[in-house]
Amino acid sequence: METLKGKTVSFIGLGLMGGALAMGIRKQGPDKICAFDINEEVLEDALRKEVIDWGVSETEGIRQILGVSDLVVICLYPQLALDFILEYMEDFKENAVITDITGVKKLLVDHLRGVLREDLDLILGHPMAGSEKEGFGNADDSIFKNRNYILVPQPENKPENLAFIKEIIHNLGFVNIVETTAEVHDQKIAFTSQLCHVIASALVDSEDDLHITDYEGGSFGDLTRIAMINAGMWTELFICNKEALVDQIEKFEKSMDTMKKMIQAEDSQGLTEILSNVRKKRITMEVDRQNKTSAKTQKA
Amino acid sequence: METLKGKTVSFIGLGLMGGALAMGIRKQGPDKICAFDINEEVLEDALRKEVIDWGVSETEGIRQILGVSDLVVICLYPQLALDFILEYMEDFKENAVITDITGVKKLLVDHLRGVLREDLDLILGHPMAGSEKEGFGNADDSIFKNRNYILVPQPENKPENLAFIKEIIHNLGFVNIVETTAEVHDQKIAFTSQLCHVIASALVDSEDDLHITDYEGGSFGDLTRIAMINAGMWTELFICNKEALVDQIEKFEKSMDTMKKMIQAEDSQGLTEILSNVRKKRITMEVDRQNKTSAKTQKA
Repeated sequence: METLKGKTVSFIGLGLMGGALAMGIRKQGPDKICAFDINEEVLEDALRKEVIDWGVSETEGIRQILGVSDLVVICLYPQLALDFILEYMEDFKENAVITDITGVKKLLVDHLRGVLREDLDLILGHPMAGSEKEGFGNADDSIFKNRNYILVPQPENKPENLAFIKEIIHNLGFVNIVETTAEVHDQKIAFTSQLCHVIASALVDSEDDLHITDYEGGSFGDLTRIAMINAGMWTELFICNKEALVDQIEKFEKSMDTMKKMIQAEDSQGLTEILSNVRKKRITMEVDRQNKTSAKTQKA
Repeated sequence: METLKGKTVSFIGLGLMGGALAMGIRKQGPDKICAFDINEEVLEDALRKEVIDWGVSETEGIRQILGVSDLVVICLYPQLALDFILEYMEDFKENAVITDITGVKKLLVDHLRGVLREDLDLILGHPMAGSEKEGFGNADDSIFKNRNYILVPQPENKPENLAFIKEIIHNLGFVNIVETTAEVHDQKIAFTSQLCHVIASALVDSEDDLHITDYEGGSFGDLTRIAMINAGMWTELFICNKEALVDQIEKFEKSMDTMKKMIQAEDSQGLTEILSNVRKKRITMEVDRQNKTSAKTQKA
């Protein structure tokens, strides 16, 4: 793993994801890891655990670490990530590579088009991993193993920088790197991630019995684990991706409504048909996932 | 484990659940285990694996095994379970204990009230465990470990038979035995189990991209594992519990709609409030579950 040899990497935000990425990148032998976080205790913890070498918590410190960083990984909520790049545009090292992990992509693409300093290269990315836990204290880079990583390359990205980022992602344990546009990313994520979080939250919201788990056999637990949600972050993600998310919610509502009407009408044949199709479709989706995971694992 | 010493137990239906229960009960040392299944290969497999001692696949065989069985465990779909008890009413051994595992309870209570032979004791039960896999070939009694078991005792049940069934359930690995009425059972199960299966199925139904798992980070997989559904059985469960299920679907739809409108209106404050409450509620539910599981495990 020579990719990061001699390089300085900075993490902007050292929460669950920033922390886990820093842990995984530490293993790839960079020259130095710096981090900005507003929480000084987090920085102390990260220094003590030797995840980072230098922690800063204010503007002057940010300018210093940016000035020496070959790679900057921005691990902030979407709007803050955008604001950060705009505010510190002049402070990045010449030819620095910047990447992000935000769950919506059109926001960054639309607001940074034609605005980013010409020598900088922003490679947009989205690691498809996480946890219902929050914060650096719960960070653990094993969450990346066998996961997907979505990249949203732009025409201006330099091929060597894309290859550099892909190598790092691969070394973190991700097995399936998918490249797509910001539009497709936001539409797909509205379904696989945001809609799932809305459903899990609505399911918990609709039940008032706090002892309901007396009656559960696993399904409710599996469907609502992600309802232990970071309220601020998900509110921002939902609103940033409003159009695509509402579209997915309405498609889902339509399927629910069809099934509800069949149940009301005691339409056994219709229900059996839908459920048989759903079973086949879900198995096909699972096989597709497994084929990709195992193919890429063997290649590695 | 003296509970089953000298007893003969029959399983009616040797699918995933009947098979797993037979495996678990085998470990409790009954005198003999018999089984009825229409699939002779399943019976041969079960005999070979020494899960059962005697397998029958037709009416005359059913009469023979019922005539010698102290305990009969009916592991059929709801309507078939009801039909079975009505059809073979005169064939059960005197004072036999019968139990079932069906996912709806009012159907049996309503149709058997005042009809059951007086010496027989039917203890209605629902093991809250399962798998997206089907059939005896996938049966495994480890699925019962630390799970809930719901009992729906009736006024006519004999206390010694209830205690007998509870002892067996406990020995199978279940840690939380909940007693309730048929009405409450069907209402709670409509939420924890049936609504979850409708949601998972609707979610898969609403997506046409068979490569969608390229974009997933775990949530979609967790929410839709149960969409690999046994279409016939779940169609019957949904329709048998129509009123309670439609009621739960509509409560859920209302919560979804509230959140959708907040997303459309970019109501950050409202969304953050709902998501914060949901998080707290889900954590409270989880703590309740863990307390009960650990308390009963320690007691054991």
